[in-house]
Amino acid sequence: MRWSSAFLPVLKESPADAQIVSHKLMLRAGLVRQTAAGIYAWLPVGWRVLRKIEQIVREEQDRAGAQELLMPTMQSAELWRESGRYDAYGPEMLRIRDRHEREMLFGPTNEEMITALFRDDVSSYRDLPRTLYHIQWKFRDEVRPRFGVMRGREFLMKDAYSFDLDEAGARQSYYTQLLAYLRTFQRLGIRAVPMKAASGPIGGDLSHEFIVLAPTGESEVFYDAAFEGFDWNQADVAYGDAEGLTRLFEQVSGTYAATDETHDAARWSQVPAEKQRTGRGIEVGHIFYFGDKYSKAMGLKVSGPDGRPLTPMMGSYGIGVSRLVGAIIEASHDDSGIVWPEAVAPWTVGLVTMRADDGPSSAAADDLYAKLNAVGVDTLYDDRDERGGVKLGSMDLLGLPWQVIVGPRGIANGVVELKNRRTGEREELSAEAVLNRLTA
Amino acid sequence: MRWSSAFLPVLKESPADAQIVSHKLMLRAGLVRQTAAGIYAWLPVGWRVLRKIEQIVREEQDRAGAQELLMPTMQSAELWRESGRYDAYGPEMLRIRDRHEREMLFGPTNEEMITALFRDDVSSYRDLPRTLYHIQWKFRDEVRPRFGVMRGREFLMKDAYSFDLDEAGARQSYYTQLLAYLRTFQRLGIRAVPMKAASGPIGGDLSHEFIVLAPTGESEVFYDAAFEGFDWNQADVAYGDAEGLTRLFEQVSGTYAATDETHDAARWSQVPAEKQRTGRGIEVGHIFYFGDKYSKAMGLKVSGPDGRPLTPMMGSYGIGVSRLVGAIIEASHDDSGIVWPEAVAPWTVGLVTMRADDGPSSAAADDLYAKLNAVGVDTLYDDRDERGGVKLGSMDLLGLPWQVIVGPRGIANGVVELKNRRTGEREELSAEAVLNRLTA
Repeated sequence: MRWSSAFLPVLKESPADAQIVSHKLMLRAGLVRQTAAGIYAWLPVGWRVLRKIEQIVREEQDRAGAQELLMPTMQSAELWRESGRYDAYGPEMLRIRDRHEREMLFGPTNEEMITALFRDDVSSYRDLPRTLYHIQWKFRDEVRPRFGVMRGREFLMKDAYSFDLDEAGARQSYYTQLLAYLRTFQRLGIRAVPMKAASGPIGGDLSHEFIVLAPTGESEVFYDAAFEGFDWNQADVAYGDAEGLTRLFEQVSGTYAATDETHDAARWSQVPAEKQRTGRGIEVGHIFYFGDKYSKAMGLKVSGPDGRPLTPMMGSYGIGVSRLVGAIIEASHDDSGIVWPEAVAPWTVGLVTMRADDGPSSAAADDLYAKLNAVGVDTLYDDRDERGGVKLGSMDLLGLPWQVIVGPRGIANGVVELKNRRTGEREELSAEAVLNRLTA
Repeated sequence: MRWSSAFLPVLKESPADAQIVSHKLMLRAGLVRQTAAGIYAWLPVGWRVLRKIEQIVREEQDRAGAQELLMPTMQSAELWRESGRYDAYGPEMLRIRDRHEREMLFGPTNEEMITALFRDDVSSYRDLPRTLYHIQWKFRDEVRPRFGVMRGREFLMKDAYSFDLDEAGARQSYYTQLLAYLRTFQRLGIRAVPMKAASGPIGGDLSHEFIVLAPTGESEVFYDAAFEGFDWNQADVAYGDAEGLTRLFEQVSGTYAATDETHDAARWSQVPAEKQRTGRGIEVGHIFYFGDKYSKAMGLKVSGPDGRPLTPMMGSYGIGVSRLVGAIIEASHDDSGIVWPEAVAPWTVGLVTMRADDGPSSAAADDLYAKLNAVGVDTLYDDRDERGGVKLGSMDLLGLPWQVIVGPRGIANGVVELKNRRTGEREELSAEAVLNRLTA
């Protein structure tokens, strides 16, 4: 993409109403614009990031055997009356009447709808287990939306739902999602620590929050440094391997990690002092086993192997996809701007001409841009007629992993500059060598 | 995907409330389920098709230089008051009050929002032209939703908006989208004829509907058979080539095509009788030039080259993405079920074992499934323990382009059957030969 023809509005100043750094940077770098309180339009740069995150979430769900579908945003109140939640849910539910005065709502979550869909089409134990998910916009009418996409009203969430014949099966589905989550967050380039969450209505040990560490986080967290060393994508566990998944769960459960809500001083004191990590964190995922809460209330039954009806046991598994954009920035930025993990960067490379009016360096940059495109390196080419310093500042703000800086002096010497955004390291190299480096 | 572990509910009977063939087939083949009047959940098969269509639409928009963003579903009434449409829009607009009694709405379209976004971030003629698009769920509160996704309430639409400095520029943007649309529909495997639409408030010749021919179509259409021969993807026109685009527009405008609304008997009589085609059609796209209607009403101005303010000229360009699923089925099915064009089929190949309990044929099918996956051929493997006839019927219903049928008799002779769903042609081949054929 050439910046000169892009819709990529960056701001020099931080908008006054943004309180936290991710919100400021998302506005400044042109990722989002607020269109109503707590509701955002995703401009091209933000949308690129959001789609990359969404795609990684999707791939890891698919790899774990979950099946994607898409439920609509608008739901009928009737459906929520079946579970008893229509009246129980507070003012965060956006309640709507259509032209025929039918009561509707903008879905804040989908337990009722997925249970109804499953109930209407599944009748036999042979059709279980299944885990179904979708990635869809939700609405929660926060009384005081703030912190940009971190606590917005319309937000993108991946929510998965598992259906099993019994609790043992449901535990396996839970462990499967646990591993999928660990792999998802690792691929996104962030450290999200799974923390035992306050038990829900069911009790038990099957509820974890995934917390990204960031100084602006909403809760205090305590965890064992062992979590910093785990490599979940190398973990020797296959989906479907019940023993392996159980071991994985025990490894996670056996390694201390808790929020202030679930913190246990006695267990904490057993973590060696040099391995105690504390800080603040942002919740980006939550997995949850709730047994027959919805299946029972809504009459979901399947016939068992012996012909007798069984009530499936369920769990739900959420990832805050749009919130992750903010959370990643909270966890990965510096004074100059965003520092994107490579997997979610809107482009991998930012190519900058220091002097757009200098023929030889523009020609060299054009040529390099064509070559980067030809080999499939995602490049934003800042070919604008702006001062070099302004362009470098914008590129730092945008946070692409690599910058390639082309200036008249370098070109005269046959070199361009390659800058690593995270480390700040700069090297002078031939254009050829830069290409090789970026495609290695 | 193995059918035995899929969420793929097919129905033997057509639901009584479905009136048109696409609606019946979408329910029977498990593409969608209605969750409230005119609102559908997309089950895994339907979601696969919808995403393939969406991706082709996206790729052709990108290729034409349009930039993707995402605007939210919920909009403020305030925004629509700026254009005067809040009061003008009828009861199809879903009006909502949030917890603070602020007036909101579920967006039926996005002219106001994109104009506001552009106004807030663009100030100079150098930032034009731009074409921006998104693919987002919309809501129109139809008084009598029917025909499944063809006339639903919550629907997926691609809407693009162009901003130009003058009418000449806007015409080029219009021609660019015209070509993108012709290429999009051709890639989707359907014939969508561009027909001059009734002029909007601006008048002029810049409004076309794209109509897919199908007996259940809502309007009568008349067109020159020349449209059947055009190959838009081979057309020798590059985006950015003003002369070429103008020629293309003249070619389209000069070839007769009209709905009953715009039909001109005098011009029609000049089409040679053997080239006159008539029938019924379904609208799947609409492109529209509306000049300064929104920019003027909403105060969008940019400074021109001479420093004086200019009011950009705009157009909008819609494709009914979810409606296309129904329209494609209306145009492409037979008595046994759907016949997907290959580009949008949920899977390319349906692999069927005629007897799941027969060891050698199951082993052969398992092996072929692994090999198809290894070479990246998208395959649905019906490994269910069902009668062969039932499985063949389901596969015909689902409409995948190719079926590979594995039975004990064939395996004894070292062959499997390859069936072309569209032509019904069957061949006996070795598994090896089938693989070669499907990867050719």
